[in-house]
Amino acid sequence: MALLSFLTPVLVVILCLVVGFMLVKSRETEATSTAQGKTNRTSKSDFRPWVDQDLQDETEISPGGRDDDEWVNNSEEEDLAHVPYSPPRYPEKTMLERSKSFYTLMNQRRSVRFISPEPVPREVIDHVILTAGTAPSGAHTEPWTFVVVSDPETKHQIRLIVEEEEEMNYRQRMGDKWVQDLAKLRTNWIKEYLDVAPYLILIFKQTYGILPDSKKRTHYYNEISVSISCGILLAALQNVGLVTVTSTPLNCGPQLRFLLKRPANEKLLMLLPVGYPAPDATVPDLKRKQLDDIMVHI
Amino acid sequence: MALLSFLTPVLVVILCLVVGFMLVKSRETEATSTAQGKTNRTSKSDFRPWVDQDLQDETEISPGGRDDDEWVNNSEEEDLAHVPYSPPRYPEKTMLERSKSFYTLMNQRRSVRFISPEPVPREVIDHVILTAGTAPSGAHTEPWTFVVVSDPETKHQIRLIVEEEEEMNYRQRMGDKWVQDLAKLRTNWIKEYLDVAPYLILIFKQTYGILPDSKKRTHYYNEISVSISCGILLAALQNVGLVTVTSTPLNCGPQLRFLLKRPANEKLLMLLPVGYPAPDATVPDLKRKQLDDIMVHI
Repeated sequence: MALLSFLTPVLVVILCLVVGFMLVKSRETEATSTAQGKTNRTSKSDFRPWVDQDLQDETEISPGGRDDDEWVNNSEEEDLAHVPYSPPRYPEKTMLERSKSFYTLMNQRRSVRFISPEPVPREVIDHVILTAGTAPSGAHTEPWTFVVVSDPETKHQIRLIVEEEEEMNYRQRMGDKWVQDLAKLRTNWIKEYLDVAPYLILIFKQTYGILPDSKKRTHYYNEISVSISCGILLAALQNVGLVTVTSTPLNCGPQLRFLLKRPANEKLLMLLPVGYPAPDATVPDLKRKQLDDIMVHI
Repeated sequence: MALLSFLTPVLVVILCLVVGFMLVKSRETEATSTAQGKTNRTSKSDFRPWVDQDLQDETEISPGGRDDDEWVNNSEEEDLAHVPYSPPRYPEKTMLERSKSFYTLMNQRRSVRFISPEPVPREVIDHVILTAGTAPSGAHTEPWTFVVVSDPETKHQIRLIVEEEEEMNYRQRMGDKWVQDLAKLRTNWIKEYLDVAPYLILIFKQTYGILPDSKKRTHYYNEISVSISCGILLAALQNVGLVTVTSTPLNCGPQLRFLLKRPANEKLLMLLPVGYPAPDATVPDLKRKQLDDIMVHI
């Protein structure tokens, strides 16, 4: 008892120290988590302890305080000369016809999961990528890399990575809400088309560029720019009768980036399997919204 | 001392309880901060203390833990029937020609700031918007609203809001780096085209939808979906000989949303002035990257 009596003040001191330490620790944790949360919006380290640090996606550079950006086109070159611009002008009747027929063509586009293994001329794919490259981009940075994969072994590696991640999503990570949404659709994590499609197009956004003096140059609006480019790519595919299904394998981006040997400033945004539709291809019988549901005129 | 001796075990219990509590608290804090960080990535409140709370953009709903999303198309309707899909198939020669001519057409597109006030047939704009509405979207949410403004007074109000914000950006908010970039371009905050262009198209992303039971339904990938839709819209404009300049007036989004009476789940993503190019329109004499600079084949 005497020993215990002697220990009481010691215990009190320990108690104070522990409480103090925990308070400090708690604040630190908060600060760290907030910082991480802010800059690394999809931190998965808790879920994927086996992923190397350098496999993880880096901080997303957000446009922050920047505002009405006209996506001015010539930041690379000072005092770029201006040249006259006079594109073809169509009579009103022709405009109307062209607007209708392009709508009809694009309205036939559907996301197709049943892709034929038949080969597709490479030159067509080249033109499709060139077309995607005509998209506007913040400060004309053209922050996109299109990795076109036709090598069967690489396609299979991609499939393995995507399916592994996808299975984990379903099993572990997804919120109840999302799992429910997908459960309705009986989606599963088998992606046969990743082996079958003659081409996989992996679209990377370049989050920053490297200047001649080795400094990083932020690519503002890179995700929006690359998504716009993807829209034009989808139009180009539809225009030649090829099909795809839009997917955004964000979490396996780092692994796919390593597989495809892309540099650290590039992040995977989209993965598009491309080919002819399979002869027995089907699509869900869904409708699109009417004009009045998507347009407001003032 | 006897009292102290008696208190020792009590102190030990308190110590244990405190340590346990702090541990739990610490974890909670971490979870909360991470969640906040994840969902609130573009808080601008620091920069705009004078903006009413309800004018501020709400939390961005980020896809979080979701991964390879095929953007499955029928979450609204359970067990949606599948129907055969057989789009037109072109002979290889035709495909090649079509891919070339579409590239040529799209490669003529430029961002144009000199827009003619001449009227443009409204029906053409309707088709352009319908075409944009054919874009794929996460879970077929079609999370876009296109506000087409031709009313001169509303256009002028938009101009005032955009120019005010733009001026503040240049003067106060932009980082040195960005101001330098733009200084090169002699951009200023005068946006005459916002009055002059016969149409302004303001593209809103719907960050969530409202279910019949009044619950919010997250629109995953809404920004990417709407940006893809914008890419198809740009293609549709180019196809009929109209011009625009892509702008992302993110900070004046809330004010413009109020002006245009859009609901709280809609956030402004793009503002596109649309019309014929002015007869004396010029564009900076810039080049696009070569195919080898944007495509990698494996």
